[in-house]
Parts: sequence; structure tokens; C-alpha cells
Amino acid sequence: MSEYIEHDPTGVSVGIVEKRFFGFADPPHEMCLESGARLGPVTIAYETYGTLNPKKSNAVLILHALSGDSHVAGYYSEDDPKPGWWDIMVGPEKGIDTNRYFVICCNILGSCMGSTGPSSTNPKTDRPYGPDFPMVTIGDMVKAQKAVIDHLGISRLLSVMGGSIGGMQVLEWCLRYPEMVISAVPLASTTRHSALAIAFNEVARQAIMADPNWNNGEYYPGPRPDLGLAVARMIGHITYLSDESMRHKFGRRLQDKGDFSFNFDADFQVESYLRYQGRKFVERFDANSFLYITKASDYFDLAIQHDSGSVVKAFSKAKAKFLVVSFTSDWLYPTYQSRAMVQAMKKNGLDVSFCEIEAEWGHDAFLLPNDRLDGLVKGFLERVHDEIQ
Amino acid sequence: MSEYIEHDPTGVSVGIVEKRFFGFADPPHEMCLESGARLGPVTIAYETYGTLNPKKSNAVLILHALSGDSHVAGYYSEDDPKPGWWDIMVGPEKGIDTNRYFVICCNILGSCMGSTGPSSTNPKTDRPYGPDFPMVTIGDMVKAQKAVIDHLGISRLLSVMGGSIGGMQVLEWCLRYPEMVISAVPLASTTRHSALAIAFNEVARQAIMADPNWNNGEYYPGPRPDLGLAVARMIGHITYLSDESMRHKFGRRLQDKGDFSFNFDADFQVESYLRYQGRKFVERFDANSFLYITKASDYFDLAIQHDSGSVVKAFSKAKAKFLVVSFTSDWLYPTYQSRAMVQAMKKNGLDVSFCEIEAEWGHDAFLLPNDRLDGLVKGFLERVHDEIQ
Repeated sequence: MSEYIEHDPTGVSVGIVEKRFFGFADPPHEMCLESGARLGPVTIAYETYGTLNPKKSNAVLILHALSGDSHVAGYYSEDDPKPGWWDIMVGPEKGIDTNRYFVICCNILGSCMGSTGPSSTNPKTDRPYGPDFPMVTIGDMVKAQKAVIDHLGISRLLSVMGGSIGGMQVLEWCLRYPEMVISAVPLASTTRHSALAIAFNEVARQAIMADPNWNNGEYYPGPRPDLGLAVARMIGHITYLSDESMRHKFGRRLQDKGDFSFNFDADFQVESYLRYQGRKFVERFDANSFLYITKASDYFDLAIQHDSGSVVKAFSKAKAKFLVVSFTSDWLYPTYQSRAMVQAMKKNGLDVSFCEIEAEWGHDAFLLPNDRLDGLVKGFLERVHDEIQ
Repeated sequence: MSEYIEHDPTGVSVGIVEKRFFGFADPPHEMCLESGARLGPVTIAYETYGTLNPKKSNAVLILHALSGDSHVAGYYSEDDPKPGWWDIMVGPEKGIDTNRYFVICCNILGSCMGSTGPSSTNPKTDRPYGPDFPMVTIGDMVKAQKAVIDHLGISRLLSVMGGSIGGMQVLEWCLRYPEMVISAVPLASTTRHSALAIAFNEVARQAIMADPNWNNGEYYPGPRPDLGLAVARMIGHITYLSDESMRHKFGRRLQDKGDFSFNFDADFQVESYLRYQGRKFVERFDANSFLYITKASDYFDLAIQHDSGSVVKAFSKAKAKFLVVSFTSDWLYPTYQSRAMVQAMKKNGLDVSFCEIEAEWGHDAFLLPNDRLDGLVKGFLERVHDEIQ
């Protein structure tokens, strides 16, 4: 997700929040992964906002995308300059109203924001896993999230919700634990990556692996493959925007100069922007996590992973009510992919609402202020909440 | 341009051809570049096919794109496995019929296929220029081509024609030397890069510059920044295709395996394809040339470079008859950009034909077999040729 999003500092926030950690799968009871490999112990970082009601019927699980983390909303301290990544949506009286709902978000397995991933310590060697970290899948991420939800004593989730790779996890939740999911909101998502999406991920991975500092994944404690990871991030960033949004945001405007430099400095604002995004990303993200998570997203294929051969058959397992949302200018996970998902849901007689939102911001649109999206999510949650009372 | 294009080996070819070289701008009469820098001597590699008629009225100049060269058609020897890059279009009785027209193509200034570029020897140091090579523009490339055309004794070109960056050169020819251009065919082109196109070029450049072997451009005679250049090429390749063409060509098919590898090998055919394209490209192309040519294409802005402030005013200089062609699935230089160009031409009362061709192959469509394009080009050339007789 992008980081150019300026949150409204006057918005009401959930306030000061705390990252928590849940550990499980201590050897010999290791977590069995889809690849057949075993992993343990596993720590999952998570945060919660709002209060779980006595009936435990108001829990909303939010699932983050590639570079996200458990920090959806609020601030870590009084002088924290930046709120969580979806603070515009999650908070008192916001689209996901923390006065009404108990919101949970887990950092995904394989990431580097507190959950176990390739930069975590391998108990067998007392050194970071690096390339010895096993490949994890979207299914494995969801399985680990389930352990946290069990730990919180929640047997049914009012809603699971997320965009992009978060949306893949939403769908996986609905098929893997259908009895636990009352409603589901996949945003700007897909049941499987297109060749185009795989291609972008693969080139980004190649950029990391071309960096000699990557050293086949054995770079801890450093130097890290920062240059490769920055290029990977820049590639990602282009796919999160759109031709239209880039034209409006940057056009051909020059960066702090009246004319071309006639050298390889950044001449155009769009060049400076991308370079800045690349530099900033390497400060907070681990290159191996980028590799593992993008590969997991490429592997994800709902139909195949649920032994059904077709998306329609796969959704026969689901029991949730769905709100599916796509965005007109999202060319990474275009609307036709959401529409195909909706058709498969409907063929199974599921309760599905679908909305394609007119938005110029490309794939990133789901993260940006959007009254239409706020209203849709708020109305949908109210409906499913009222129905179970 | 792509290299997955399988040419029809049964097609009639121009036969064995020879690359030639024209040298000019020997010091002190150096070529004065748009940046203000001076360059000399300059060598331009070129090829010709067909025969110049006595009136010298049948010359067609073809202008190549980023990674192209002067070798448009035919073979260099009997056992040359591969014809020139537009052999499907240029040859006896083809779209550009070498029985009727005298076809010329020059390798662009700044390239590495025989024309002077950053890998050429700097006469001041007797070593390759590297980063001391001056920045060249589309205008400089056209100025160098003009020297070759003058050398061939041709005062008017029946047509100038090219796709992508070649199309930019077409437009530049029409405004820089309007009296010399009878007709012009910009294919899949634009009067200036969008922020999206600049963004892709910039990330590709960053991939090269992130390779330690690039060494600020001072890598001759090697080792060369092959890994960075391969990533740059892969990024380019994605932009030359389209979501639809990649779905048809690759989908999610696996490469020589029945299941995922659960490691970072290429699992999907699209991954293998991109890796292969990257590897193959570094064998024949110079990373510095990639940097210089992409920067030249980003700088190109017809309106600004012709001191007019608007594309409409810029085209007031033009005298050519135009055939403008775009392709439905080209998202790098989308149809709306060709349409804007056509409107500006029409506002100047120019003779313009415009066609948007239905094609799934993305930006690369102009290089692929297409009866519609063949017919359009053939008909257009016949018309303008007949009109001047």
C-alpha cells in the first residue's frame, strides 16, 4: 500500500494502541504448512480496537496487504506522528465503528512487522531463518490468524475484511473456516493473480535477487539488499496507481527545476516520488519478507487450493454474506476479476452485494478517503450485525 | 520491442543485406546537440532495401524504437537464423513493398548497434565515453538521420514511419524538416510520455543504476551491469504486452512442472519468459544506451520542444500527410494520446487518416503480423506515391 496518503489529523482516532503478540506452535507441536514443511514456534503480532461484547458477536477481523502490518488505526504514543494504515476507516463513528465493533488485525505470517518471518530467529540455529524460512501460503497465514482468534475466545467473526492480498485472505477464511465467518468484504481483490500481476511480482523479486547484498537471502544482520528492495517497491508503486491518477498527481511537472538536468538525476516529480518511496520502504521492510509474501500471493488460486477445479465449486463451501468492492481504475486486480468472483458466489445462492466504485486512484483506491466506500462498509456491517441479534 | 515474435520463414524476404556506416561531424565541426553539448565524430549505422528511383521520389525512412537497430529486414548471411525486426512489413510485395520503395533505416544516435553512443570510443580519451557521453534527444537523433539522408542525395522522403519511440522521431521529422517529409506514419506513439510511461522508464533506469557493476556508467570493458539491465528489460517487456495478451499467452500455466516449487525458482511460464527475455537482452544491448535512450524519450515533448506551448501550434509547422495508428490494448501509449495528436493535426487542416486497430497484443501490436496494419500502410503509401507522380 502507498504511503503518500495524508490522513486527516483532525479525525477522531481510536487513540493510543498497543501491539500485542501471541505465540504458539512450540516444538514439537509445530505448525504444519501447506508445502508440507513445519514451522514453530510461531509468533503473530496483532492489535485490537474497541470492546468485545459479552456475546462475542461484534468482532471484525481486518486482513492487511503485502507491506501492511497489525497497526490499522490509532497511535503508539502521544508523539507518534502517523496513525495506523487504515485510520480513515477504523475508529469511533468511522466506516468500521470502534464504538460498536471489536476490531482485530494480525500481521501476516512471513512478514517482518512482529510476526514470524524470514528475519525471525530460527530456533535450530539461533540465527535468522533467511532462505531456510519455509514458503508460506495465504492458507498458512489464515491458519495462523485462526490461532489468534481462538486465543481471543471468539468462535464467530462478524466480518472479515481486507483489500488486495488482504482480500485473498478474506476469501480463504470463508472457505477454510466457513462456520466462523458471518460476513466478508474482499476489496480490490481476486481469486487468483493474473499473468500480469505475477509478472510484476516476478520482476520485483528479480530486482531484489539481483542485488549482490541479497546473497541468496543470507544477509542478516546486513548489509541489506536496499537498492534491490527499493526498485522492487518502485515497481509495486506504479501498479498501485493508475495512468489517470499519475497524470493528475504528477503529469510531466519537473522537480524543483526550471528545465531538464540533461543527466540521470530525477527531472520529473514522478521520478522523485518513486525514488523517495523506494528509499522510505527499505527503512521499514525486509527484502526476504517481500519475496515470501509476493510468492504466496502468486501461488494463491482459490479454485485449485480448495480441490474443486472451479471457483464456483470452491464457493460452495462458503456460508458468509459478501460485500465485494472493486475500483474502476484498478488495473492490477481489475473489476472483471471481482465480477467473476461475484458470479461464482451467486451461483451458490450466497448473499452477495457488489459495487464497482468510480475512483481514479488505481489499486490504492481502497486505502484512500472515499465516502462511498465508508458508507457501503458501514451499512453492510450494520445489516449483518442487526441480523444476528 | 519484443523478441518472441516468430517470423514466417516462408515469407519472401529482401534477402541478404549489409549494414553500412556514415561518418560525419569530425572535429572541429562537431554536431551541436540540443543540450548545448558538442559531439563528434558521429557514425550512424544504416541499411537500405530496394532501389532509389531516378527521381529519388520513392524513399521511405523507417525509425526504430528503444532497443531496435538499422536491421529492419532480410538476413546478414545465408545461415543467419533471424531476419530483421520488421521483416513481416518490409520486403517484396509486403506492406512496405521493396519492389516499389527504397527503404532506409538508421540506428539511432546513443544506441549501441553501430551508431555513436556511450559505448563508442571518446576521441578525447581513446576510451569508451561511458557517462561522459552527452545526453541526446529525439531531436538530435533526427538531426543525425538527416545527415544520412543528405548523404544519400535524397531531398524529400516519400514517408517517415515508426512505432513507439520511432513514432516520436516521425513527429520530430515532420516539424524539424517539414519540406522534406511528404507523408508520415506514427504508430503506437505519443507527442510526449505520460507520468506512467516516465515512471516505468525511471524504475528500469534505477534497476540498472542499482547494479554495482554499473559503476556510474564506467564499466567498460566489463563486467557489465547485466543483472540490472535484465531487470530493466523485464519491466519494459511487461509494458509492451497487455493483461489480455498475457492471459492468453501464459495464464497461470506452470513451467515444466506439475506443481509449485515452493521456492524462488520460476514456477509460472510468465516468470520463465521474463527471465529469458532479460538474459537474452543483455547479450546484445548496452546498459548505458538503455539509460540514454529512455531519458531521451522521457524528455521528448513535441509542444515544448517546438517552442509553441501547445501541440496544436506545434503541428502548424507540419506539411506531411499523416496516417496515425493506435492499438486498443496498448496501455503504454494509449489511443487517447494518438487521438489528441490527430485532433491537433486536424486543427491545422492537415491531411490525416487515423485508425485504432483492435489488437490484444498491447504496445507490441505494431510489430506483430496484422493484415489490417499491412493493408493500411500499403494503401497509404500507394496513395501518397501516386499523388506526387
